[in-house]
Formats: sequence, C-alpha cells, structure tokens
Amino acid sequence: MNTYATIKTQTVEAANGVTYAYRDLGEDGAQRPLVLLQHFRGNLDNWDPALIDVLAAGRRVITFDNRGVGATTGTTPDTVTAMAEDAIAFIAALDLGSVDLLGFSLGSFVAQEIALIRPNLVRRVVLASSAPQGASGMHGWSPQVVAAVGGETASAEGYVGIFFTRPENATAAGRVFGTRTEGHDAPATWSTAVAQYDAVTRWGIPNHALLQRVQGITQPVFVANGDSDPMILPRYSHLLAGLLPDATVKIYPDAAHGFLFQHHEQFAADVAAFLDR
Amino acid sequence: MNTYATIKTQTVEAANGVTYAYRDLGEDGAQRPLVLLQHFRGNLDNWDPALIDVLAAGRRVITFDNRGVGATTGTTPDTVTAMAEDAIAFIAALDLGSVDLLGFSLGSFVAQEIALIRPNLVRRVVLASSAPQGASGMHGWSPQVVAAVGGETASAEGYVGIFFTRPENATAAGRVFGTRTEGHDAPATWSTAVAQYDAVTRWGIPNHALLQRVQGITQPVFVANGDSDPMILPRYSHLLAGLLPDATVKIYPDAAHGFLFQHHEQFAADVAAFLDR
Repeated sequence: MNTYATIKTQTVEAANGVTYAYRDLGEDGAQRPLVLLQHFRGNLDNWDPALIDVLAAGRRVITFDNRGVGATTGTTPDTVTAMAEDAIAFIAALDLGSVDLLGFSLGSFVAQEIALIRPNLVRRVVLASSAPQGASGMHGWSPQVVAAVGGETASAEGYVGIFFTRPENATAAGRVFGTRTEGHDAPATWSTAVAQYDAVTRWGIPNHALLQRVQGITQPVFVANGDSDPMILPRYSHLLAGLLPDATVKIYPDAAHGFLFQHHEQFAADVAAFLDR
Repeated sequence: MNTYATIKTQTVEAANGVTYAYRDLGEDGAQRPLVLLQHFRGNLDNWDPALIDVLAAGRRVITFDNRGVGATTGTTPDTVTAMAEDAIAFIAALDLGSVDLLGFSLGSFVAQEIALIRPNLVRRVVLASSAPQGASGMHGWSPQVVAAVGGETASAEGYVGIFFTRPENATAAGRVFGTRTEGHDAPATWSTAVAQYDAVTRWGIPNHALLQRVQGITQPVFVANGDSDPMILPRYSHLLAGLLPDATVKIYPDAAHGFLFQHHEQFAADVAAFLDR
C-alpha cells in the first residue's frame, strides 16, 4: 500500500505551460478528490505524511507545488488571485472535474479565491488557519513570526516555534522532515518566499469593505485553527465563520499554526465527517 | 436573603428627567456592579430569577427598565444610540462608577453602543445573543420570528418557540412567568415594541463598513449564544468574536434565544469566570 512518505512525485503539463509536480494518494470513490493547497514556503514534503495517509484512507488526496514552488516550473506570482488561477490550471490539467479543497494558511487564501473565481469547480472547502481578505490586524505578520520563518535561511527552531505551542507537541515536525528517505521535493527558493510574502501582505491590507467577498462562497466550509496560532490568530477563523453563509468552526486546543499536524487524527476525522456528511 | 423573585422594585430620577424602575440584588464587593440590559419587549420580570440569583451570589446585579419600558417614565426611543444614552443616564443616576455590562439581544446592541460612546464607564462586557451593527442577513428578523414575538399581542407559545429549542428545554419560561407573586412590573406597551423593532431593524441595515465600529471596544468581551437561536443566528457571535480585539466566544448546545435562561447555572459560572479572571 502506498503511503505519502514513499509515493513518487508525478508531473503534469497544464494549458498555461507550467509543468506541475504533484503526489496522488488514495482511491477515487463515491467522494470527490481532495486537493490540498500548501502554506508559505511549503513544498510537497511539508505535508505531515501521517495526516495525508489518514485523509487518503477515505478518498483520493492530491498535493501539488503551485507555479514556481519546489519542483514546479515557472515563477511564483505575488498575488493570491494569480496563485488561484495557477491552481485552477493544475486541477484542469488532471481533469478532476469538481473537487473538494483543503487550504492551509496561504493555501487557505488561495482556496477562498478559487471558490470565488470558479465556484462550480468547488464542492466543499476546508480552511485551516485562515483569514478573510481585508481583516484588520493581520497585515504583514508580527515581527516575531517574520523573524522565525521569514528569513532567507529558515531554521527548524523557527518552524517549531510557530507551528507548535511547546516542543512536546512538535512530534509532527519529526514526521514532516524525517519520514521520507528518498525522492525529496526541491526546496522553495528565496524568490518564492519573497513573492509569497508579498501575496500574504497584500491579502492583509486592512479593508473591511472586502470582508463581504466571502459571502460569495456559498459552499459548505469547515474553518479550523489552533487556539494559540501566532501566525494567523484564531479570531480570524471566527470572523470567517461569521461572514461565510454556511460555515462551521472548530478551534483545536493547545495548538499553534501546525494544529492540523499535531492533531492529525482528530483533524482528519473532522474533515472526513464534514466532507462525507 | 433577597431573591430576584421577591426583591422590591426601586426608582431613581436621572438628570435627563426620566424616573427609572430598577432592581438591585447582591452585594458590592471586590467586583464592579453588573448592569443588565434587557431584550426586545422585556421588562424587569422577564429576567429568569434563577439566573439573576446565581449571578448575584458573587456580585451586585442591577436590572432596570430603560426609558419608556415597563414602569420607567418617558417614551421609548427608536435607535440603539438613544437607548445607550438613556442607559448611561441611569447608571450615572445610581452613581455606580464604572460597571460591567451584560446585554441580551437588543440589550447587547445597547451594551456595544455604551462601550463605544462612554468607554471609561465600562470595565467588561457580556454579549448574549448579539450581532454587530451592519452585518448582512439580520435585517428585520425572519417572518417566523416576527410572527412569534412581534405581534401586538404576544403569546406564550411564540415566546417559547423562539427562546427554546423544545418544550422540554423551556423550564425557564415557567420561572420567568411564574415565580414572582407580587410587585410585578408594568408590561411593555405596543408603542415600546414598535420603537424597539425600529431600532433593531436599523441596527440590521446591511453595511459592512460599520463592522469596523466594534474594534473600538477594547475591553474584554464574552460573546455567547445558543446553537439554534432563530432570532439572532450564532454566526453573528462568531463574527463579533472575530471583529472585537479581545473576545472569547461560547455557543451553548441545544439552545435557542433563551440559552442563558435554559443553561442558567453554566452560563452564570462562565460569566463569573470571565468577570473575575
């Protein structure tokens, strides 16, 4: 049986000329495929393999590097809208039909934008550590967060400090960085990090008139976060749940940005219950 | 020992010329007095005496009829802002200094407005079944809600249907209407109901630019609702918690608009923990 830590990376060329690297786990069944959208500076290897394996026990799960990230060709764009267009091109290239989306952090912004640009492509949406465009107080991240994960050389200590509340809760970091032994993805470059940071910062330019945008997402949405996420505060998950027409929200205890890896079994069960209900 | 069902109604004349009816239970201690702000068409008798008694076990609790309501003189105004000004005049008349506020439904809109108009009067705020001004989708209540509680003659069945999910959960309705045997308050008049409905409807005129207003409430806020409130949907509690700078939110299970009466012991314990922390 395939596992996320051993499955090979594949490639597909899309109509936009980009060759996307992706991994495809689990089986097509009664459910739509679940397409995952990755966080700032993350590549295929940055998904916790334990989380992907349990998600893929019940459905087909697809991870991919968006344009310019990791092993995917092209240049990383600096807006969430362009990233959404690139993700739509990837989904079209795989001929998946409509899909479920699970977006994490920056990927959750992209998921919102896909649902707004191409609603009939999207059946249901999971937003992990998310925020609506224009919310006040999330512009550019705090200096502590930028110092931890925004430098030209990313450190394991910085990652663990943002993703987990305490070292005892950071078991998943070992899984992310230590499970795969061959066939690693290419790391995200510094120019990718700069472009993605610009996109995140633009998303956070305060403008309450833009909060109305997510009312256009009429699909069911599951909004989730850790109770102590320093990167995207949990109050933005409540804000999304208040603005979206059909949302449920869950805040996971004693958890930071990596709550979905730390609580991977509970989170996957909650996602499965939401997608299958 | 005094209980809310037996304590006498008092009156005080404020600088605005209005003579306010109020009830004053519990003792001044280390805590600030807790002033309660009542729901649409509610008077002093519409507070669940069991809830007030348990709240007053740890602090001084004051209920009152705002201008034109029940036994208080004057004409009920048709804006939340005017209601907030009237409440401020009452608090000043009792010479309470700064207070904690617990606003329920329409009273929660008034509580927000008091905190915005006179921040140094307010230490902490509890918003029960609340929503921020300008949120989409809450304009004028649903036809079912208006039919149940908005008619010229209010019915017990209508009240129970809006306040409780099932008749089995409506024990508190018996407490509200059946515990006090003498010294009842005057009922709210039809002209009070009309003015209050206008105020609620104006509050609900959709305008997302107004969502920014509650960022001015920098005090800690506890936002609470029932999971099945048909009058003010629980997603507006999430919305408030996402917009307020310092809020916590709790949604009570199997409960509608009267969740704070149905779950009076748990709600009072949560309020006490919030006010005393």
